[in-house]
Amino acid sequence: MRYLATVKYNGTHFQGWQRQPEVPTVQGSIEAVLSKLLDKETVIYGSGRTDAGVHALGQRFHFDTEKEIEDLSKFRYALNRLLDRDIHVDEIVKVADDFHARLSATSKVYQYVINTGEDDPFNIDFKHFYPRDLDVEEMARGAKLFAGRHDFRNFTSKEEDDDGFVREIYDISVSRLKDHIIIEIAGSGFMRYMVRMIVGTLLEIGMGRFSVAETAKLLDNPERHFVNYKAPPNGLYLVKVDY
Amino acid sequence: MRYLATVKYNGTHFQGWQRQPEVPTVQGSIEAVLSKLLDKETVIYGSGRTDAGVHALGQRFHFDTEKEIEDLSKFRYALNRLLDRDIHVDEIVKVADDFHARLSATSKVYQYVINTGEDDPFNIDFKHFYPRDLDVEEMARGAKLFAGRHDFRNFTSKEEDDDGFVREIYDISVSRLKDHIIIEIAGSGFMRYMVRMIVGTLLEIGMGRFSVAETAKLLDNPERHFVNYKAPPNGLYLVKVDY
Repeated sequence: MRYLATVKYNGTHFQGWQRQPEVPTVQGSIEAVLSKLLDKETVIYGSGRTDAGVHALGQRFHFDTEKEIEDLSKFRYALNRLLDRDIHVDEIVKVADDFHARLSATSKVYQYVINTGEDDPFNIDFKHFYPRDLDVEEMARGAKLFAGRHDFRNFTSKEEDDDGFVREIYDISVSRLKDHIIIEIAGSGFMRYMVRMIVGTLLEIGMGRFSVAETAKLLDNPERHFVNYKAPPNGLYLVKVDY
Repeated sequence: MRYLATVKYNGTHFQGWQRQPEVPTVQGSIEAVLSKLLDKETVIYGSGRTDAGVHALGQRFHFDTEKEIEDLSKFRYALNRLLDRDIHVDEIVKVADDFHARLSATSKVYQYVINTGEDDPFNIDFKHFYPRDLDVEEMARGAKLFAGRHDFRNFTSKEEDDDGFVREIYDISVSRLKDHIIIEIAGSGFMRYMVRMIVGTLLEIGMGRFSVAETAKLLDNPERHFVNYKAPPNGLYLVKVDY
Protein backbone atom coordinates (compact mmCIF):
# COMPACT_ATOMS: atom_id res chain seq x y z
CA MET A 1 0.00 0.00 0.00
CA ARG A 2 1.25 3.49 -0.76
CA TYR A 3 0.45 6.58 1.33
CA LEU A 4 0.98 10.28 0.73
CA ALA A 5 1.59 12.55 3.70
CA THR A 6 1.52 16.34 4.01
CA VAL A 7 3.90 17.71 6.60
CA LYS A 8 4.95 21.06 8.02
CA TYR A 9 8.22 21.65 9.79
CA ASN A 10 10.37 24.28 11.41
CA GLY A 11 13.70 23.75 9.64
CA THR A 12 15.81 25.62 12.20
CA HIS A 13 17.21 22.67 14.10
CA PHE A 14 17.59 20.30 11.11
CA GLN A 15 20.40 19.86 8.61
CA GLY A 16 17.82 19.97 5.84
CA TRP A 17 15.36 17.39 4.55
CA GLN A 18 17.65 14.68 3.25
CA ARG A 19 18.72 11.83 5.52
CA GLN A 20 22.42 11.94 6.52
CA PRO A 21 24.22 9.85 9.08
CA GLU A 22 24.76 11.35 12.55
CA VAL A 23 22.97 14.66 11.99
CA PRO A 24 19.33 15.62 12.59
CA THR A 25 17.37 15.77 9.34
CA VAL A 26 13.64 15.92 8.65
CA GLN A 27 13.63 12.78 6.52
CA GLY A 28 15.71 10.88 9.06
CA SER A 29 13.44 11.92 11.94
CA ILE A 30 10.26 10.89 10.13
CA GLU A 31 11.73 7.60 8.92
CA ALA A 32 12.85 6.66 12.43
CA VAL A 33 9.35 7.17 13.84
CA LEU A 34 7.53 5.53 10.90
CA SER A 35 9.83 2.50 11.08
CA LYS A 36 8.97 2.16 14.77
CA LEU A 37 5.22 2.49 14.24
CA LEU A 38 5.18 0.11 11.26
CA ASP A 39 7.63 -2.21 12.94
CA LYS A 40 9.67 -2.35 9.73
CA GLU A 41 12.49 -0.26 8.24
CA THR A 42 10.60 2.36 6.20
CA VAL A 43 11.96 4.79 3.62
CA ILE A 44 10.08 7.98 2.71
CA TYR A 45 10.24 9.81 -0.63
CA GLY A 46 9.89 13.57 -0.41
CA SER A 47 8.60 15.84 -3.16
CA GLY A 48 12.10 17.31 -3.09
CA ARG A 49 14.76 18.35 -0.63
CA THR A 50 14.87 21.49 1.45
CA ASP A 51 18.13 23.03 2.72
CA ALA A 52 19.19 23.35 6.35
CA GLY A 53 17.13 26.10 8.00
CA VAL A 54 14.43 26.13 5.30
CA HIS A 55 10.86 25.61 6.56
CA ALA A 56 7.86 23.82 5.10
CA LEU A 57 4.14 24.44 5.48
CA GLY A 58 3.11 21.76 3.00
CA GLN A 59 5.94 19.40 2.10
CA ARG A 60 4.77 16.00 0.84
CA PHE A 61 6.24 12.52 0.97
CA HIS A 62 5.10 8.99 0.18
CA PHE A 63 5.91 5.67 1.81
CA ASP A 64 4.88 2.04 1.40
CA THR A 65 3.49 -0.45 3.90
CA GLU A 66 2.97 -4.18 3.61
CA LYS A 67 -0.61 -4.08 4.80
CA GLU A 68 -3.22 -1.39 4.89
CA ILE A 69 -3.20 1.08 7.80
CA GLU A 70 -6.62 0.53 9.38
CA ASP A 71 -7.24 3.84 11.07
CA LEU A 72 -5.32 6.62 9.34
CA SER A 73 -6.46 9.24 11.81
CA LYS A 74 -5.22 7.24 14.80
CA PHE A 75 -2.01 6.45 12.94
CA ARG A 76 -1.37 10.12 12.22
CA TYR A 77 -2.07 10.98 15.87
CA ALA A 78 0.47 8.39 17.08
CA LEU A 79 2.99 9.61 14.50
CA ASN A 80 2.70 13.21 15.68
CA ARG A 81 3.05 12.23 19.33
CA LEU A 82 6.31 10.40 18.55
CA LEU A 83 7.75 12.98 16.16
CA ASP A 84 9.94 15.89 17.24
CA ARG A 85 7.61 18.77 17.99
CA ASP A 86 9.11 20.85 15.17
CA ILE A 87 7.58 18.41 12.66
CA HIS A 88 3.83 17.94 12.30
CA VAL A 89 2.04 15.66 9.83
CA ASP A 90 -1.21 17.32 8.75
CA GLU A 91 -2.65 14.62 6.51
CA ILE A 92 -2.09 11.06 5.31
CA VAL A 93 -4.06 9.62 2.38
CA LYS A 94 -3.89 6.36 0.45
CA VAL A 95 -2.66 6.75 -3.14
CA ALA A 96 -2.18 4.51 -6.17
CA ASP A 97 0.86 2.26 -6.25
CA ASP A 98 2.40 4.18 -9.15
CA PHE A 99 2.02 7.56 -7.47
CA HIS A 100 5.35 9.23 -6.61
CA ALA A 101 5.69 12.26 -4.32
CA ARG A 102 8.45 13.77 -6.47
CA LEU A 103 7.82 12.43 -9.97
CA SER A 104 4.05 12.96 -9.90
CA ALA A 105 4.29 16.56 -8.65
CA THR A 106 2.95 19.11 -11.15
CA SER A 107 3.55 22.30 -9.19
CA LYS A 108 5.34 23.63 -6.14
CA VAL A 109 4.90 26.93 -4.36
CA TYR A 110 7.57 28.67 -2.27
CA GLN A 111 7.36 31.83 -0.22
CA TYR A 112 10.20 34.02 0.96
CA VAL A 113 9.67 36.49 3.82
CA ILE A 114 11.86 39.59 4.26
CA ASN A 115 11.52 41.87 7.29
CA THR A 116 12.65 45.40 6.35
CA GLY A 117 11.35 46.93 9.59
CA GLU A 118 12.30 46.81 13.24
CA ASP A 119 14.45 44.08 14.76
CA ASP A 120 12.26 41.18 15.79
CA PRO A 121 14.17 38.89 18.17
CA PHE A 122 11.39 36.28 18.16
CA ASN A 123 11.51 35.79 14.40
CA ILE A 124 15.21 35.58 13.62
CA ASP A 125 14.81 31.98 12.46
CA PHE A 126 11.62 32.66 10.49
CA LYS A 127 12.26 35.78 8.40
CA HIS A 128 15.22 37.23 6.57
CA PHE A 129 16.04 40.53 8.21
CA TYR A 130 17.13 43.42 5.97
CA PRO A 131 16.60 46.65 7.91
CA ARG A 132 16.77 49.06 4.99
CA ASP A 133 14.40 49.89 2.22
CA LEU A 134 14.35 47.77 -0.92
CA ASP A 135 13.18 48.94 -4.33
CA VAL A 136 10.12 46.69 -4.60
CA GLU A 137 9.07 48.01 -8.02
CA GLU A 138 12.47 47.11 -9.49
CA MET A 139 12.37 43.71 -7.76
CA ALA A 140 8.95 43.08 -9.34
CA ARG A 141 10.35 44.04 -12.78
CA GLY A 142 13.21 41.59 -12.24
CA ALA A 143 10.82 38.89 -11.05
CA LYS A 144 8.78 39.11 -14.27
CA LEU A 145 11.82 37.92 -16.25
CA PHE A 146 11.74 34.55 -14.50
CA ALA A 147 8.10 33.79 -15.34
CA GLY A 148 7.62 31.19 -18.06
CA ARG A 149 9.81 28.44 -19.44
CA HIS A 150 13.55 29.08 -19.22
CA ASP A 151 16.94 27.44 -19.06
CA PHE A 152 17.83 28.15 -15.43
CA ARG A 153 21.43 26.86 -15.52
CA ASN A 154 22.67 30.18 -14.13
CA PHE A 155 20.28 30.01 -11.19
CA THR A 156 21.26 26.67 -9.72
CA SER A 157 24.41 24.99 -8.48
CA LYS A 158 23.21 21.66 -9.94
CA GLU A 159 25.64 19.77 -12.15
CA GLU A 160 24.73 19.02 -15.77
CA ASP A 161 22.65 15.84 -16.03
CA ASP A 162 20.03 14.11 -18.22
CA ASP A 163 17.32 16.17 -16.66
CA GLY A 164 18.63 19.40 -18.13
CA PHE A 165 18.13 22.91 -16.80
CA VAL A 166 14.80 23.86 -18.33
CA ARG A 167 12.03 24.53 -15.85
CA GLU A 168 8.83 26.52 -15.90
CA ILE A 169 7.88 29.24 -13.44
CA TYR A 170 4.08 29.48 -13.44
CA ASP A 171 3.85 32.56 -11.33
CA ILE A 172 6.16 34.87 -9.41
CA SER A 173 5.23 37.93 -7.39
CA VAL A 174 6.89 40.46 -5.10
CA SER A 175 4.55 42.20 -2.70
CA ARG A 176 4.87 44.54 0.24
CA LEU A 177 2.89 43.92 3.39
CA LYS A 178 3.54 46.75 5.85
CA ASP A 179 7.28 46.50 6.55
CA HIS A 180 7.59 43.02 5.05
CA ILE A 181 8.32 41.96 1.49
CA ILE A 182 6.95 38.59 0.37
CA ILE A 183 8.23 36.82 -2.72
CA GLU A 184 6.06 33.97 -3.95
CA ILE A 185 7.18 31.57 -6.66
CA ALA A 186 5.16 28.74 -8.20
CA GLY A 187 6.78 26.42 -10.69
CA SER A 188 7.01 22.98 -12.26
CA GLY A 189 10.06 22.06 -10.23
CA PHE A 190 13.10 23.66 -8.69
CA MET A 191 16.76 22.65 -8.87
CA ARG A 192 19.34 22.89 -6.11
CA TYR A 193 19.43 26.44 -4.66
CA MET A 194 17.21 27.69 -7.51
CA VAL A 195 14.65 29.46 -5.31
CA ARG A 196 17.31 30.96 -3.05
CA MET A 197 19.34 32.12 -6.07
CA ILE A 198 16.31 33.76 -7.71
CA VAL A 199 15.39 35.44 -4.42
CA GLY A 200 19.05 36.39 -3.84
CA THR A 201 19.16 38.04 -7.27
CA LEU A 202 15.92 39.94 -6.55
CA LEU A 203 17.36 41.10 -3.22
CA GLU A 204 20.47 42.45 -5.00
CA ILE A 205 18.22 44.22 -7.50
CA GLY A 206 16.22 45.71 -4.62
CA MET A 207 19.43 47.02 -3.05
CA GLY A 208 20.49 48.53 -6.38
CA ARG A 209 23.59 46.37 -6.58
CA PHE A 210 22.52 44.29 -9.58
CA SER A 211 20.32 45.25 -12.51
CA VAL A 212 17.31 43.82 -14.29
CA ALA A 213 19.33 43.97 -17.53
CA GLU A 214 22.17 41.88 -16.05
CA THR A 215 19.58 39.39 -14.80
CA ALA A 216 18.10 39.10 -18.29
CA LYS A 217 21.56 38.34 -19.68
CA LEU A 218 21.95 35.37 -17.33
CA LEU A 219 18.56 33.86 -18.14
CA ASP A 220 18.44 31.40 -21.03
CA ASN A 221 22.17 31.90 -21.47
CA PRO A 222 23.81 28.62 -22.52
CA GLU A 223 27.15 29.73 -21.05
CA ARG A 224 27.33 28.49 -17.51
CA HIS A 225 28.12 31.33 -15.10
CA PHE A 226 25.77 31.06 -12.20
CA VAL A 227 24.92 33.97 -9.90
CA ASN A 228 26.74 34.26 -6.60
CA TYR A 229 23.63 35.41 -4.80
CA LYS A 230 21.82 33.01 -2.54
CA ALA A 231 19.24 34.30 -0.07
CA PRO A 232 19.62 32.94 3.48
CA PRO A 233 17.48 29.86 4.26
CA ASN A 234 15.56 31.19 7.29
CA GLY A 235 13.10 33.27 5.23
CA LEU A 236 12.13 30.40 2.92
CA TYR A 237 8.99 28.24 3.15
CA LEU A 238 7.91 25.37 0.90
CA VAL A 239 4.21 26.26 0.95
CA LYS A 240 2.61 23.48 -1.09
CA VAL A 241 3.07 20.75 -3.64
CA ASP A 242 0.30 19.89 -6.10
CA TYR A 243 -0.34 16.73 -8.12
CA MET B 1 26.39 59.11 34.30
CA ARG B 2 23.86 56.33 34.84
CA TYR B 3 21.54 55.00 32.13
CA LEU B 4 18.53 52.70 32.25
CA ALA B 5 17.81 50.48 29.23
CA THR B 6 14.72 48.46 28.30
CA VAL B 7 15.49 45.33 26.33
CA LYS B 8 13.62 42.43 24.75
CA TYR B 9 15.20 39.11 23.95
CA ASN B 10 14.53 35.65 22.62
CA GLY B 11 16.04 33.47 25.34
CA THR B 12 16.22 30.30 23.24
CA HIS B 13 19.89 30.40 22.38
CA PHE B 14 21.16 31.83 25.69
CA GLN B 15 22.13 30.16 28.94
CA GLY B 16 20.00 32.70 30.75
CA TRP B 17 20.59 36.34 31.67
CA GLN B 18 23.54 36.08 34.05
CA ARG B 19 27.09 36.33 32.68
CA GLN B 20 29.04 33.05 32.81
CA PRO B 21 32.40 32.24 31.28
CA GLU B 22 32.42 30.44 27.91
CA VAL B 23 28.66 30.25 27.35
CA PRO B 24 26.30 32.66 25.58
CA THR B 25 24.29 34.74 28.05
CA VAL B 26 22.20 37.86 27.56
CA GLN B 27 24.17 39.91 30.08
CA GLY B 28 27.49 38.76 28.60
CA SER B 29 26.40 39.62 25.06
CA ILE B 30 25.20 43.11 26.00
CA GLU B 31 28.29 43.85 28.12
CA ALA B 32 30.62 42.82 25.29
CA VAL B 33 28.96 45.23 22.84
CA LEU B 34 28.59 48.09 25.35
CA SER B 35 32.24 47.78 26.36
CA LYS B 36 33.20 48.06 22.69
CA LEU B 37 30.99 51.08 22.02
CA LEU B 38 32.05 52.88 25.21
CA ASP B 39 35.66 51.80 24.75
CA LYS B 40 35.77 50.71 28.39
CA GLU B 41 34.95 47.51 30.27
CA THR B 42 31.29 48.02 31.21
CA VAL B 43 29.16 46.02 33.64
CA ILE B 44 25.35 46.04 33.43
CA TYR B 45 22.93 45.50 36.31
CA GLY B 46 19.69 43.74 35.38
CA SER B 47 16.39 44.06 37.22
CA GLY B 48 16.85 40.36 37.93
CA ARG B 49 17.97 37.17 36.24
CA THR B 50 16.03 35.07 33.77
CA ASP B 51 16.70 31.34 33.31
CA ALA B 52 17.98 29.68 30.15
CA GLY B 53 15.23 29.65 27.52
CA VAL B 54 13.12 32.32 29.25
CA HIS B 55 12.23 35.34 27.12
CA ALA B 56 11.85 39.03 27.90
CA LEU B 57 9.68 41.71 26.36
CA GLY B 58 10.69 44.42 28.82
CA GLN B 59 13.70 43.46 30.89
CA ARG B 60 15.62 46.48 32.29
CA PHE B 61 19.24 47.09 33.19
CA HIS B 62 21.38 50.04 34.18
CA PHE B 63 25.02 50.89 33.43
CA ASP B 64 27.42 53.74 34.10
CA THR B 65 29.56 55.81 31.75
CA GLU B 66 32.33 58.29 32.50
CA LYS B 67 30.90 61.01 30.30
CA GLU B 68 27.45 61.70 29.00
CA ILE B 69 26.28 59.90 25.86
CA GLU B 70 25.58 62.77 23.46
CA ASP B 71 23.04 61.23 21.13
CA LEU B 72 21.13 58.43 22.87
CA SER B 73 19.13 57.57 19.77
CA LYS B 74 22.26 57.10 17.64
CA PHE B 75 23.89 55.18 20.47
CA ARG B 76 20.94 52.82 20.74
CA TYR B 77 20.97 52.32 16.95
CA ALA B 78 24.67 51.39 16.99
CA LEU B 79 24.11 49.09 19.96
CA ASN B 80 21.33 47.20 18.17
CA ARG B 81 23.38 46.83 15.00
CA LEU B 82 26.22 45.23 17.00
CA LEU B 83 24.06 43.06 19.26
CA ASP B 84 23.01 39.51 18.39
CA ARG B 85 19.74 39.79 16.53
CA ASP B 86 17.88 37.92 19.26
CA ILE B 87 18.43 40.89 21.60
CA HIS B 88 16.94 44.32 20.92
CA VAL B 89 17.26 47.42 23.09
CA ASP B 90 14.02 49.42 22.89
CA GLU B 91 14.91 52.41 25.02
CA ILE B 92 17.78 54.05 26.89
CA VAL B 93 17.19 56.94 29.30
CA LYS B 94 19.40 58.86 31.70
CA VAL B 95 18.63 58.24 35.38
CA ALA B 96 19.80 59.55 38.76
CA ASP B 97 23.10 58.23 40.10
CA ASP B 98 21.38 56.42 42.94
CA PHE B 99 18.88 54.64 40.70
CA HIS B 100 19.33 50.85 40.60
CA ALA B 101 17.63 48.57 38.04
CA ARG B 102 17.05 45.85 40.64
CA LEU B 103 16.85 47.67 43.97
CA SER B 104 14.64 50.49 42.70
CA ALA B 105 12.12 48.17 41.02
CA THR B 106 8.64 48.33 42.53
CA SER B 107 6.85 45.80 40.33
CA LYS B 108 7.51 43.08 37.78
CA VAL B 109 5.09 41.38 35.43
CA TYR B 110 5.53 37.90 33.97
CA GLN B 111 3.41 36.04 31.45
CA TYR B 112 3.28 32.32 30.80
CA VAL B 113 1.84 30.97 27.56
CA ILE B 114 0.44 27.43 27.27
CA ASN B 115 -0.73 25.99 23.95
CA THR B 116 -3.40 23.34 24.57
CA GLY B 117 -4.32 23.04 20.89
CA GLU B 118 -2.70 21.73 17.75
CA ASP B 119 1.03 21.15 17.39
CA ASP B 120 2.70 24.35 16.25
CA PRO B 121 6.20 23.58 14.96
CA PHE B 122 7.04 27.28 14.58
CA ASN B 123 6.40 28.07 18.23
CA ILE B 124 8.10 25.24 20.09
CA ASP B 125 10.57 27.68 21.65
CA PHE B 126 7.90 30.29 22.47
CA LYS B 127 5.01 28.45 24.11
CA HIS B 128 4.67 25.53 26.48
CA PHE B 129 2.80 22.80 24.64
CA TYR B 130 0.26 20.74 26.58
CA PRO B 131 -2.10 19.15 24.08
CA ARG B 132 -4.89 18.19 26.49
CA ASP B 133 -7.52 20.17 28.26
CA LEU B 134 -6.69 21.86 31.55
CA ASP B 135 -9.22 22.79 34.22
CA VAL B 136 -8.89 26.56 33.93
CA GLU B 137 -11.49 27.30 36.63
CA GLU B 138 -9.57 25.20 39.15
CA MET B 139 -6.29 26.81 38.07
CA ALA B 140 -7.85 30.24 38.64
CA ARG B 141 -8.98 29.15 42.13
CA GLY B 142 -5.44 27.99 42.85
CA ALA B 143 -3.99 31.23 41.48
CA LYS B 144 -6.08 33.33 43.88
CA LEU B 145 -4.23 31.77 46.84
CA PHE B 146 -0.98 33.35 45.72
CA ALA B 147 -2.31 36.90 45.55
CA GLY B 148 -1.17 39.12 48.40
CA ARG B 149 1.72 39.03 50.81
CA HIS B 150 3.03 35.55 51.62
CA ASP B 151 6.04 33.60 52.74
CA PHE B 152 6.95 31.88 49.47
CA ARG B 153 9.69 29.59 50.84
CA ASN B 154 7.96 26.56 49.33
CA PHE B 155 7.82 28.13 45.88
CA THR B 156 11.50 28.87 45.34
CA SER B 157 14.75 26.94 45.40
CA LYS B 158 16.49 29.96 46.97
CA GLU B 159 18.55 29.33 50.11
CA GLU B 160 17.69 31.11 53.34
CA ASP B 161 19.26 34.59 53.48
CA ASP B 162 18.80 38.02 55.08
CA ASP B 163 16.27 38.91 52.46
CA GLY B 164 13.78 36.33 53.68
CA PHE B 165 11.03 34.65 51.71
CA VAL B 166 8.22 37.14 52.02
CA ARG B 167 7.07 38.68 48.75
CA GLU B 168 3.89 40.28 47.52
CA ILE B 169 1.91 39.20 44.47
CA TYR B 170 -0.10 42.23 43.32
CA ASP B 171 -2.14 40.41 40.75
CA ILE B 172 -2.39 36.94 39.26
CA SER B 173 -4.78 35.74 36.57
CA VAL B 174 -5.42 32.64 34.49
CA SER B 175 -7.25 33.25 31.23
CA ARG B 176 -8.18 31.24 28.18
CA LEU B 177 -7.65 32.71 24.74
CA LYS B 178 -8.96 30.27 22.13
CA ASP B 179 -6.79 27.16 22.63
CA HIS B 180 -4.21 29.02 24.71
CA ILE B 181 -4.03 29.57 28.44
CA ILE B 182 -2.23 32.67 29.66
CA ILE B 183 -1.06 33.08 33.24
CA GLU B 184 -0.08 36.62 34.22
CA ILE B 185 1.64 37.42 37.50
CA ALA B 186 2.58 40.85 38.82
CA GLY B 187 4.55 41.17 42.01
CA SER B 188 7.02 43.07 44.11
CA GLY B 189 9.84 40.71 43.26
CA PHE B 190 10.41 37.07 42.46
CA MET B 191 12.94 34.61 43.87
CA ARG B 192 14.77 31.87 41.99
CA TYR B 193 12.30 29.66 40.07
CA MET B 194 9.38 31.30 41.89
CA VAL B 195 7.35 32.11 38.77
CA ARG B 196 8.03 28.73 37.19
CA MET B 197 7.13 26.93 40.44
CA ILE B 198 3.85 28.84 40.83
CA VAL B 199 2.99 28.16 37.17
CA GLY B 200 4.11 24.53 37.53
CA THR B 201 1.79 24.13 40.53
CA LEU B 202 -1.12 25.67 38.60
CA LEU B 203 -0.41 23.30 35.69
CA GLU B 204 -0.58 20.32 38.05
CA ILE B 205 -3.85 21.66 39.46
CA GLY B 206 -5.19 22.04 35.90
CA MET B 207 -4.29 18.41 35.18
CA GLY B 208 -6.02 17.29 38.38
CA ARG B 209 -2.82 15.89 39.85
CA PHE B 210 -2.49 18.40 42.70
CA SER B 211 -5.19 20.21 44.63
CA VAL B 212 -5.95 23.76 45.64
CA ALA B 213 -6.08 22.54 49.28
CA GLU B 214 -2.57 21.05 49.04
CA THR B 215 -1.36 24.32 47.53
CA ALA B 216 -2.84 26.28 50.42
CA LYS B 217 -0.99 24.07 52.88
CA LEU B 218 2.34 24.94 51.27
CA LEU B 219 1.76 28.69 51.28
CA ASP B 220 2.90 30.58 54.36
CA ASN B 221 4.09 27.31 55.82
CA PRO B 222 7.29 27.86 57.82
CA GLU B 223 8.36 24.27 57.24
CA ARG B 224 10.53 24.17 54.17
CA HIS B 225 9.27 21.59 51.70
CA PHE B 226 9.26 23.20 48.29
CA VAL B 227 7.12 21.95 45.39
CA ASN B 228 8.70 19.74 42.79
CA TYR B 229 6.82 21.41 39.96
CA LYS B 230 8.63 23.82 37.70
CA ALA B 231 7.05 24.87 34.40
CA PRO B 232 9.42 24.69 31.39
CA PRO B 233 11.18 27.97 30.53
CA ASN B 234 10.05 28.34 26.90
CA GLY B 235 6.55 29.62 27.76
CA LEU B 236 7.79 32.33 30.13
CA TYR B 237 8.16 36.06 29.37
CA LEU B 238 9.36 38.86 31.61
CA VAL B 239 6.88 41.44 30.35
CA LYS B 240 7.81 44.58 32.26
CA VAL B 241 9.55 46.11 35.23
CA ASP B 242 8.24 49.26 36.85
CA TYR B 243 9.95 51.81 39.12
